[in-house]
Amino acid sequence: MRIGIADTTFAQVDMAKFAIEAIRKADKSMQIERYTVPGFKDLPVAAKKLLEDYKCDIALAFGWAGPTELDEKCALEANIALMHTELAANKHILKVFVFASESKEISELISIAKDRSEKHALNALALLKGKEELTPFAGKGLRQGSKHRGSLE
Amino acid sequence: MRIGIADTTFAQVDMAKFAIEAIRKADKSMQIERYTVPGFKDLPVAAKKLLEDYKCDIALAFGWAGPTELDEKCALEANIALMHTELAANKHILKVFVFASESKEISELISIAKDRSEKHALNALALLKGKEELTPFAGKGLRQGSKHRGSLE
Amino acid sequence: MRIGIADTTFAQVDMAKFAIEAIRKADKSMQIERYTVPGFKDLPVAAKKLLEDYKCDIALAFGWAGPTELDEKCALEANIALMHTELAANKHILKVFVFASESKEISELISIAKDRSEKHALNALALLKGKEELTPFAGKGLRQGSKHRGSLE
Amino acid sequence: MRIGIADTTFAQVDMAKFAIEAIRKADKSMQIERYTVPGFKDLPVAAKKLLEDYKCDIALAFGWAGPTELDEKCALEANIALMHTELAANKHILKVFVFASESKEISELISIAKDRSEKHALNALALLKGKEELTPFAGKGLRQGSKHRGSLE
Amino acid sequence: MRIGIADTTFAQVDMAKFAIEAIRKADKSMQIERYTVPGFKDLPVAAKKLLEDYKCDIALAFGWAGPTELDEKCALEANIALMHTELAANKHILKVFVFASESKEISELISIAKDRSEKHALNALALLKGKEELTPFAGKGLRQGSKHRGSLE
Repeated sequence: MRIGIADTTFAQVDMAKFAIEAIRKADKSMQIERYTVPGFKDLPVAAKKLLEDYKCDIALAFGWAGPTELDEKCALEANIALMHTELAANKHILKVFVFASESKEISELISIAKDRSEKHALNALALLKGKEELTPFAGKGLRQGSKHRGSLE
Repeated sequence: MRIGIADTTFAQVDMAKFAIEAIRKADKSMQIERYTVPGFKDLPVAAKKLLEDYKCDIALAFGWAGPTELDEKCALEANIALMHTELAANKHILKVFVFASESKEISELISIAKDRSEKHALNALALLKGKEELTPFAGKGLRQGSKHRGSLE
Repeated sequence: MRIGIADTTFAQVDMAKFAIEAIRKADKSMQIERYTVPGFKDLPVAAKKLLEDYKCDIALAFGWAGPTELDEKCALEANIALMHTELAANKHILKVFVFASESKEISELISIAKDRSEKHALNALALLKGKEELTPFAGKGLRQGSKHRGSLE
Repeated sequence: MRIGIADTTFAQVDMAKFAIEAIRKADKSMQIERYTVPGFKDLPVAAKKLLEDYKCDIALAFGWAGPTELDEKCALEANIALMHTELAANKHILKVFVFASESKEISELISIAKDRSEKHALNALALLKGKEELTPFAGKGLRQGSKHRGSLE
Repeated sequence: MRIGIADTTFAQVDMAKFAIEAIRKADKSMQIERYTVPGFKDLPVAAKKLLEDYKCDIALAFGWAGPTELDEKCALEANIALMHTELAANKHILKVFVFASESKEISELISIAKDRSEKHALNALALLKGKEELTPFAGKGLRQGSKHRGSLE
């Protein structure tokens, strides 16, 4: 199996590094292809190339959005395009975005980025195992970037 | 006939459980395929796989959106992608989303999730029977997640 | 010729009824196919099925949006998907939406719904006659749901 | 060569008239096809039919948006669908929209509509001549609907 | 290799000029195709033609957005369509937009436009070399239009 990793030079944390470490630790045989682009609006075509040209079975797309409302809107647009890419390739792309507005503390932003990247790397491995691999956790309030919230029930 | 159910580990209520119970109660012969993904932005490709790869005749997509405006915007984007998925597959995907902002009371949020999930499960069964199965209720102000509003006429 | 009518159980006025009466009155030979879905986000695939599977030459999609800003945004998303449906089918879908925020008076909301539904039913018949059937009214400030505004010139 | 013109009965100024006059004046041999629809959300499929069924080489789409924020958002959605239409047809559609909020003065709104329609008609003729026909004006701050702004350099 | 450059007559700075100079300086053998359109909403089909009809391997799309919120929203829509164009062509289009709201100083706006255009021109050359050409800079907080921010780590 092969995982594609698309990331950006815009980001201020090397999120892909955390994801690659988590994948290596969980599954030594997994192949990894990496594709780095300038900003998150360049991620959709990079992810498409990873899934189609580089034959990856799933992809992780790491985006980093600045603090303004315009930045957030742009990130939403990139997410729309990433969903279209998934539909065209019929494969998952886990969209791992950090928003600079999530914390004013640099150390906390780094923690968020690390936690989100690692957990989504493991989510990607789970999705590759089958459509019901995550079903035991359905409705359990899992979170990436912070502690799990848990079920309300 | 076969119903696909796509849901998330992000949700804090196991909405699919309510839907599956409602389907089982109404039609014991209906086959069900379930697909669990991390968050609602992963639902479109899961629903597509259910409709195309797993040959489901209709799907229910259960999403749970956090309380911020950004969460709500993300949920809209996921809905757009789900509509595109429906058009590509030429089959319905009932979009069953709960917004954390709908109530501050946990018990009420659970009630909303349960009512919406059950009613949309029955809507899916109705749509499978034919395009005019719901016509007697056209313009009748039906609601999922709360009591029906009724017709203004 | 055949007109498709897609409507919802969410709506609080049976808009399709007004449209069907207007079509019957104007052209007794016109065939009508109706498709009722739960909410306006289900209209795109219903309209697609009417245009493609049921061979309709044009469709009317009747939506009813609740009063919140979120409702309005959802309605916009449904409109985007309806435009994509039109492009894929290369046929018109007249998008007949009523927003609960258009009036606080129930009787006025019903009047808006009736006027809009009837006028768009006649617009559909006109579009079926040819691309210049409405040209004499180009720039004339026609309105559906209220009185015509007229030309500024 | 053939230019398609799509316009609406919703508009309160006959913008297509100004464009047709400008085209006739500049190039007597140019063929023109016109298609009138109710509102701007009906323009995408009209433009598509002009470009594909009526073999136009380029199209002008004339829209008129009401004064509310909802009207403006709808106009944006129509623009998205028009861009998709362009991509599918691989031909330009110049999007000529007037927003009622651009001026409170009727005479000024008419002037804006006239200036924008005429200038975009000439832009269409230029684009038909080749991809570098407008290059001498690149970055020159040209405007349609008002006086040119000029270059900042 | 061939780079496509799409720009507008709306822009108030000739951004393409800066990009072309940067490309010429870095790689004398690179072929350049230019396509000028009226405004940024015309960029998607221009970029598509550059990538497909003119066989460019990558494209730069230079947009200039006015100062209002409506202008910014329009720019987002153009970006969505550009991402769709990239996906359809399976090639990158670097989206180089300047917003008039980025600075009230004309000289600073020109500096932003120049820096962003030059850096993205070099990004395009890097992407043509391979998917990991930019990987040494992943997460390094690179910026176009201002000084690099650097990594937070």
